[in-house]
Amino acid sequence: MSTATEHETTTVTAAALRALEARYGMPWNAPLPAWNATLDTLLAHRSVRNYADRALPAGTLETLIAAAQSASTSSNLQTWSVVAVEDPERKARLSALAANQSQVREAPIFLVWLADLARLEAAGERNATGIEGLHYLETFIVGMIDAALAAQNAVVALESLGMSAVYIGAIRNHPEQVAAELGLPPRVMPVFGMCVGYPDETRPAQVKPRLPQPVVLHREQYNAPSQEASINQYDEVTRAFQTSQGQTAAGWTSRSLARWRSRESLHGRDRLRAALNALGFELR
Amino acid sequence: MSTATEHETTTVTAAALRALEARYGMPWNAPLPAWNATLDTLLAHRSVRNYADRALPAGTLETLIAAAQSASTSSNLQTWSVVAVEDPERKARLSALAANQSQVREAPIFLVWLADLARLEAAGERNATGIEGLHYLETFIVGMIDAALAAQNAVVALESLGMSAVYIGAIRNHPEQVAAELGLPPRVMPVFGMCVGYPDETRPAQVKPRLPQPVVLHREQYNAPSQEASINQYDEVTRAFQTSQGQTAAGWTSRSLARWRSRESLHGRDRLRAALNALGFELR
Repeated sequence: MSTATEHETTTVTAAALRALEARYGMPWNAPLPAWNATLDTLLAHRSVRNYADRALPAGTLETLIAAAQSASTSSNLQTWSVVAVEDPERKARLSALAANQSQVREAPIFLVWLADLARLEAAGERNATGIEGLHYLETFIVGMIDAALAAQNAVVALESLGMSAVYIGAIRNHPEQVAAELGLPPRVMPVFGMCVGYPDETRPAQVKPRLPQPVVLHREQYNAPSQEASINQYDEVTRAFQTSQGQTAAGWTSRSLARWRSRESLHGRDRLRAALNALGFELR
Repeated sequence: MSTATEHETTTVTAAALRALEARYGMPWNAPLPAWNATLDTLLAHRSVRNYADRALPAGTLETLIAAAQSASTSSNLQTWSVVAVEDPERKARLSALAANQSQVREAPIFLVWLADLARLEAAGERNATGIEGLHYLETFIVGMIDAALAAQNAVVALESLGMSAVYIGAIRNHPEQVAAELGLPPRVMPVFGMCVGYPDETRPAQVKPRLPQPVVLHREQYNAPSQEASINQYDEVTRAFQTSQGQTAAGWTSRSLARWRSRESLHGRDRLRAALNALGFELR
């Protein structure tokens, strides 16, 4: 095998500039040194909640998991697992636990991504070695990050193959019940769900504009003062997008703040710490 | 713009099967319905710690951040930021805070990915609305997951362009000092660092084999009993890989357990919870 890093580069096209413009809702002003099919896939991402009635080809799930396992993992510990749910009744029960979101029932496959400290814990017990480290907040964080990196690789893979997905954070509304439904051992946490399927082309989702780059990208040090004007600009971009989608033109700031207004606006996830303790995470 | 999801598919090639075999250190036995350049990029991932003395083209960072911002984000809250560090003296100070890892100094760009609750907090103050939700563990978790999904998209983008990266979890060894170095406001946490550059082709990194799929991929419910035999098999694969790299053939299990053996083996990250409290995260 060649040791040189393989890569693909095509000429920067007008389509690339259109993809960037759609992502920000405004023209792209930076240089653009190169472009390729992978960047096309990444930039075209949209969360899809309406799926076609079309099965996934044999081997799809295994391909996605191979992509997921190719992501970085802290010290190669691989502190994640995933449960693939296809049984309609189980999907219906999981949907009921996740704010009754219909896409959990309707997607052909529902993946539950897990921070999994149980695998190494069991290996420690087999080897009669100490495993005190697993009780710390740091170790839980490693599991969550490992799961997130793996899951995102799966999303890129499936979108490159013409499928779509949406993350389901509401799987954290009732972690203990989800753990019971999936038969999880202690010290395994459902981090998020993910619906996977072919998109229903009759109900297409659109690329959602994001914050202007200067709001999220800082040079050398964090730059708080520069953010307000760009956020105001983004509220305008968001209002235009919301109007184009037939939604109330609330903008980004007010809609986002509504999610954090109070303990109640967390929809039960204010008790996540207690739920994690119940699942065996001490979070020292 | 077309509303159909664009995708790219080529014939499954022998090279695809070789990539999968390298990822698992054993033959690929599942069906393989399709393949493409994006899957090539994903499967070829390796963490690179040796960089060529070669600057990144103008616009590279902006392209990577556009890819990062294209990742999903919980409720579009975009609770992440990134600081790009190029100043050699700052990179040296950050390296000293991150276990003196030389690649932090030597990579042309060092990115510090942040869980950023301060942006919406400031917006709440400007709008005189309640922001009680930001004090909960759930909200911190949202920020960490948002940062991880964004960072992984950046890795895929840069690898598709022939660059390489490595995540630096040791940025969590001294979170308060890193926050001071980067001028972070309260309620912003350094989640991990990332070295970015062109790989030094004279010191190539190899694809590291991962756990067999049945260990991480569960069907309908978590399957603990099936794991032990596959982990033993993986220990053999890992020993062969370690030998090929001139490393001690310790296997995966014993090396991984050494990371969790005791509080001390966390290298100071046993106090991460206290550090987060000091950075303004209550984690209720």
